[in-house]
Amino acid sequence: MHKPFAEAAKIDEVILSRLMPEEDLFAGLSKIARDHGIERGVILSAIGSLKNVVFVNVRPHIGIPVKTEDMIQIEDTGPFELLSLEGNFFPSQEDGEPVVHLHAILGTSSGSVSGGHLLKATVFTTTEILLGSITGSSVYKAKSDLTQRMELLLSRS
Amino acid sequence: MHKPFAEAAKIDEVILSRLMPEEDLFAGLSKIARDHGIERGVILSAIGSLKNVVFVNVRPHIGIPVKTEDMIQIEDTGPFELLSLEGNFFPSQEDGEPVVHLHAILGTSSGSVSGGHLLKATVFTTTEILLGSITGSSVYKAKSDLTQRMELLLSRS
Amino acid sequence: MHKPFAEAAKIDEVILSRLMPEEDLFAGLSKIARDHGIERGVILSAIGSLKNVVFVNVRPHIGIPVKTEDMIQIEDTGPFELLSLEGNFFPSQEDGEPVVHLHAILGTSSGSVSGGHLLKATVFTTTEILLGSITGSSVYKAKSDLTQRMELLLSRS
Repeated sequence: MHKPFAEAAKIDEVILSRLMPEEDLFAGLSKIARDHGIERGVILSAIGSLKNVVFVNVRPHIGIPVKTEDMIQIEDTGPFELLSLEGNFFPSQEDGEPVVHLHAILGTSSGSVSGGHLLKATVFTTTEILLGSITGSSVYKAKSDLTQRMELLLSRS
Repeated sequence: MHKPFAEAAKIDEVILSRLMPEEDLFAGLSKIARDHGIERGVILSAIGSLKNVVFVNVRPHIGIPVKTEDMIQIEDTGPFELLSLEGNFFPSQEDGEPVVHLHAILGTSSGSVSGGHLLKATVFTTTEILLGSITGSSVYKAKSDLTQRMELLLSRS
Repeated sequence: MHKPFAEAAKIDEVILSRLMPEEDLFAGLSKIARDHGIERGVILSAIGSLKNVVFVNVRPHIGIPVKTEDMIQIEDTGPFELLSLEGNFFPSQEDGEPVVHLHAILGTSSGSVSGGHLLKATVFTTTEILLGSITGSSVYKAKSDLTQRMELLLSRS
């Protein structure tokens, strides 16, 4: 059952990487994880630029569980400076495959900023990512009845 | 006296946590710190969604010290995707109690982004926080005459 | 030649620092790196406030290489809450001097947020930076023919 938890873990190794123009951000990140055998990872730093982004935000005044119609999808070819990329990946409790969860913040030519829960993005000039490999953790991703989203779940709980 | 400093420290342990819907973000974070005996902590990563947020920003063209009327408070029920959460907590020099300092960036349904110095927030669907425990540090928070805010102070200085 | 890479490295030491009002952000960061002998560094956390900022964003619909006229420069005296500061520095392959790359996100009094690739900024009240010292890395910065920007390059590649 999903409940709050706080688990002590370690980040003994970090992976410093650069993605190239035209690379898919999600595929690039997944390949790095696979090549380095990282089961649980967190983005410690990311800087670069993106294009062809698709992201979602939630409508105001909604509640949980979040329904499909509660989310608004935004597509923009950009390109944009990638100002912040937060997120992580953890294995799905069902099949062990990594579930990637990313939130991006993008700079526009007016100086204003847009962003949301990222679904898709292509690297424009570069993306420099510092990925932390989390060890000593037993956390999985599993669908929550409460939110209807894939949420972190401590396997011991 | 407050002055610039740069102190070498360690982050040997990280705490991976999940807060649940309706939890208070500040109370949740403080409980994690207390339960794990973390005196000095820094948010290394955070992703999730928030509602009922209160944050402040400063007016343009003001100087220091920052006065109460120099700050504009914004309240919004949201909910919002939590796109970035930066911050830390350090013990107050006066009583040793943790002083939590958080800046949040929130995605809105238009795709635009808002945010500021966070005063209050409730978890909407989830908040996944990776907290670094800073050891080997002698830094405190103490009120600065110069800025009239609680600022980092090296106790040896 | 520039190509994608992912290199395992370590962050054994972090530098916790505070910059003071009127300090130049770039000069302050460079001094910390120099004083602590850090060749390769990454910002793990930053929180504070800035003024007199200059940043650039790219125009929509441009391609690579990015030309000077593809970028729009924005100057604003602020001050602003510093909501996020992402970035790193690596030695230039040419002369070994650190190449600092920073993206900033700033809160405005309306609650909206601006930001971009940062060229210049002065500390307003404070800037608290947690800098990670990356060791075991052989990554440099070198100009890319493809993007016409200074990009990360693995020296072994």
